[in-house]
Amino acid sequence: MRKVVKFALCAVTFLMGVNAGSAWAQDGPKDANTQSEVTEDFKPAVSTNQQGKQYPMVNSQRRVRAQISAPNAQSVKLDIGGVKYEMKKDEKGVWTGESEPQDEGFHYYQLEIDGASVPDPNSLYYYGASRWGSGIDIPAHDQEFYELKNVPHGEIREVYYYSETNKQMRHCFIYTPPCYNKNTQKRYPVLYLQHGGGENEYGWPQQGKTGLIIDNLIAEGKAEPFIIVMDNGTWTMPRPQAQQRPQGEQRPQQRPQGQRRRGFQLPTGWADGFMKTLINDIIPMVDANYRTLADSEHRAMAGLSMGAMQTKAITLANPNTFSYVGLFSGGTISPEEVEKSEGFKKNNKLVFVSFGSREIERPRGGQNPGEIAEQLKNYGMNSHFYVSPETAHEWQTWRRSLYQFAQLVFKK
Amino acid sequence: MRKVVKFALCAVTFLMGVNAGSAWAQDGPKDANTQSEVTEDFKPAVSTNQQGKQYPMVNSQRRVRAQISAPNAQSVKLDIGGVKYEMKKDEKGVWTGESEPQDEGFHYYQLEIDGASVPDPNSLYYYGASRWGSGIDIPAHDQEFYELKNVPHGEIREVYYYSETNKQMRHCFIYTPPCYNKNTQKRYPVLYLQHGGGENEYGWPQQGKTGLIIDNLIAEGKAEPFIIVMDNGTWTMPRPQAQQRPQGEQRPQQRPQGQRRRGFQLPTGWADGFMKTLINDIIPMVDANYRTLADSEHRAMAGLSMGAMQTKAITLANPNTFSYVGLFSGGTISPEEVEKSEGFKKNNKLVFVSFGSREIERPRGGQNPGEIAEQLKNYGMNSHFYVSPETAHEWQTWRRSLYQFAQLVFKK
Repeated sequence: MRKVVKFALCAVTFLMGVNAGSAWAQDGPKDANTQSEVTEDFKPAVSTNQQGKQYPMVNSQRRVRAQISAPNAQSVKLDIGGVKYEMKKDEKGVWTGESEPQDEGFHYYQLEIDGASVPDPNSLYYYGASRWGSGIDIPAHDQEFYELKNVPHGEIREVYYYSETNKQMRHCFIYTPPCYNKNTQKRYPVLYLQHGGGENEYGWPQQGKTGLIIDNLIAEGKAEPFIIVMDNGTWTMPRPQAQQRPQGEQRPQQRPQGQRRRGFQLPTGWADGFMKTLINDIIPMVDANYRTLADSEHRAMAGLSMGAMQTKAITLANPNTFSYVGLFSGGTISPEEVEKSEGFKKNNKLVFVSFGSREIERPRGGQNPGEIAEQLKNYGMNSHFYVSPETAHEWQTWRRSLYQFAQLVFKK
Repeated sequence: MRKVVKFALCAVTFLMGVNAGSAWAQDGPKDANTQSEVTEDFKPAVSTNQQGKQYPMVNSQRRVRAQISAPNAQSVKLDIGGVKYEMKKDEKGVWTGESEPQDEGFHYYQLEIDGASVPDPNSLYYYGASRWGSGIDIPAHDQEFYELKNVPHGEIREVYYYSETNKQMRHCFIYTPPCYNKNTQKRYPVLYLQHGGGENEYGWPQQGKTGLIIDNLIAEGKAEPFIIVMDNGTWTMPRPQAQQRPQGEQRPQQRPQGQRRRGFQLPTGWADGFMKTLINDIIPMVDANYRTLADSEHRAMAGLSMGAMQTKAITLANPNTFSYVGLFSGGTISPEEVEKSEGFKKNNKLVFVSFGSREIERPRGGQNPGEIAEQLKNYGMNSHFYVSPETAHEWQTWRRSLYQFAQLVFKK
């Protein structure tokens, strides 16, 4: 019974990631027409706006105010966090409107103009919710840890390689730490870091701020320098033949089969499909081309949401390949599950589990993941549990999770 | 008189780059309502569409067909190449429409929904015309040279560094060739490659296909392996204080001062501003962190449009810093200009000049740039002139120019 409940929790968080990645996603889309007490201290969302654009703005209540010129439109809405907010037109045909307060951190959004859902031409674009679209960063009390500073910076390298498993060229990003180009004899440990459902390999380098987070930690002496590989974990069912979808039909989203799990047998598709590529192609490519410490003691895997579920499945199925494990908003590992993976307990040096506080404050009957982490610690493992304050299934949770995880990994 | 005419030509091509980068830009925006003989063999523009999206499509006539659901809109237009094409609504509220035939290669475009200019939610996004927005690649008869192939690939590295000149962190991309990680003792020549007006450091790596072009050339043994630095050459007038623009007002575009040039005195701002950063910060940063051949004999500069004008101004002003020069769609270098730069003729190993055929087929009274290139050859320099067939002031011209230039640079 316990396993069923835990899987249900995983499935909920996974689907939240696919649908919206927001605090309000679980309530579904709705319209919001009234707002009260809007504080007039809006400032441009500089880190996610296109250069020189004043809108969208954010105020001290963390409301988002968007603006667009649409002189002939009948209706324009700001669509953020699964909620649509009516905007109002002025005499020049410029529409302006604001949202209810949002959580600190990053949110996907879009505009709806006379029924057309489109990116805001003022924002930068990010891949999430299965599309490239607008994103906005709400200033956070702790944003200092992912700000661009005048410290030594690593590189994020765009890499193409051939996958024998997939019989095609693939694309990933590889972070190398600041000292990598200087210490040309030194070898480094490697973290394989996976995005969530409806996202891709751009998630961690862009909205995840991976490079800046690790650069800042290394500059402060809080993290060991290590390589980070950010690949695309999306597993696509091969189509029997090229099919064109009818006009206007949305692309079907890939979802995990809702099967009950026995032990840690891999779920069909979304975990084992990527596992083959990771084990057979990605890890050998990285060890061949970068100065890695190419053993399990210096190899970690972590991921968010779907990526956490993949991390759990893949590391339990490959206990001699990874020694450090991070699950961000995507489940836990219990002593019972460890028992079923021969060698996992002996080889593992860290199991890190995290959630946003809003993900676990209303438990759906499942066991508190912190309790499972405590059980794992009592079972004799290096178990860490972290809760991101006042965030949900969203990027601020995962930026903070990476920040915490990076201070623990490769240190034992 | 000759110099004035040549500068006028430069200014025209520069402004074309700022405004649209398209064959039709010089005719200004216009509406187009009728199309005849549309061939029904449209296929998805896979290389520039978001994954899984069927639209926009391109047919064998090189017409672009876009589609968007906008059930409550009164008017939807496809806006490409400075021309707006009316789209038509079906009974489900889905709008579809196509353009007149476009040149082969890459074009910026957008949709206009009831007066709002927005990105097409189906396309990938590119920076040009001073905004991130939609782009589409029209299949080209010679596209093989920039296709993704199973050959050894270099890396494009995202780099942050501090500029003493600008007193701020800056951002660039650095291409390292496929052998860079293997031959850890080898040092490489460096090309500094600049974008055009209204573009930024993403232009060459993304729509320019720089990595793929060079990887393919190296795989075929047609180019020497070299490093390519792609930085942001946009020069912004420092504001005396933070100013917020009124709502709805567009950001003013940076344009060169229209001053007449004497010799090769640097134009104010857009060339000398970037020159200081390049000479004082970027080149030393690159030579300190990468295995470069850090002398003028192994250093090249090239650019497109505004970037070509910067290249001309900066290489003539620094004859002992660069030995190879490439000007794509942005002017020529005459023997008279070389005469005024002490040491330029002696140190220079290549002056490469190129244009799209549609840029020079209707000369505006200026001298044919091919004639100037011929004069330079007769003057005793290694002068090469290339014309991209049936393209205008647009990326296909510049992809082809890079392809040609890369086969000549660092070979003398």
